[in-house]
Amino acid sequence: MTVNCEGELQIASLLMELKQTWHQTIPVSALMQIEPLDYRSGQLSVSAPITPNINLHQTMFAGSIYTLATLTGWGMLWLQQRIAGVDGDIVLADGHIRYLAPIIDTPIAKCIWRETDLSRLPQGRRVKVKLEVELWCEGTLCAIFEGLYVSQPPAV
Amino acid sequence: MTVNCEGELQIASLLMELKQTWHQTIPVSALMQIEPLDYRSGQLSVSAPITPNINLHQTMFAGSIYTLATLTGWGMLWLQQRIAGVDGDIVLADGHIRYLAPIIDTPIAKCIWRETDLSRLPQGRRVKVKLEVELWCEGTLCAIFEGLYVSQPPAV
Repeated sequence: MTVNCEGELQIASLLMELKQTWHQTIPVSALMQIEPLDYRSGQLSVSAPITPNINLHQTMFAGSIYTLATLTGWGMLWLQQRIAGVDGDIVLADGHIRYLAPIIDTPIAKCIWRETDLSRLPQGRRVKVKLEVELWCEGTLCAIFEGLYVSQPPAV
Repeated sequence: MTVNCEGELQIASLLMELKQTWHQTIPVSALMQIEPLDYRSGQLSVSAPITPNINLHQTMFAGSIYTLATLTGWGMLWLQQRIAGVDGDIVLADGHIRYLAPIIDTPIAKCIWRETDLSRLPQGRRVKVKLEVELWCEGTLCAIFEGLYVSQPPAV
């Protein structure tokens, strides 16, 4: 896929808006300093520094790992809705996470978009999307999250 | 079970220590204002006010709901280890949560202890415990969490 300059600027602007949406409406995400890093080739990368997300073992807190993963999935669906020019209120219905290794430094959460029909939303019908998020730290896969998201057409 | 005054004082002291452990070692738990409420008849109750845990829908943030649940399970195992007079470093290996209804006011997370043999810990062997946590708000069951916790004998 060739992304032109205009496309890259649009993505950068959307990632900035995503960060602001999180930090302004979810106080926990601001404290955690969660930040979208990049979106290319259908993959969204999101991160959060370890210091505000530490636990008593001096590794990343399990709750913070989950929150980073769940917002990455949420952000992916939000981004795809924007790119497709459709609107929907996104909630998480089900979340499952497996912790494979301790996270000892700033992790990166990665989510790949699988082609999903979002055209039901402007028809007034909800959309269910299952997304997988991987959390990597220093070349090690540390956690795998699966979330079932539901997007509702906005109330008129 | 009859709990005498001394037993009640011991539990109150342990719940205070649990709160301090969380708030002093996990900054996110302090921001969320997570607080153990009560332990009786084998049930631990934990809460967190909704204001610092709000999302953009003005209900409780999915990440905060999960964190409240996971710390309730962690706290239950910590408490049982203290009551049994054994020591172990507790981590979460696997977490699954189903969101059933929005949480619109301060929830209560409840976890019931199922008899588990913790005597492996002083023998230098780890213990795995599966715990279920229910999150209630205004008489409605809003989320169900299942966590697999692993407690390791402390390094000598």
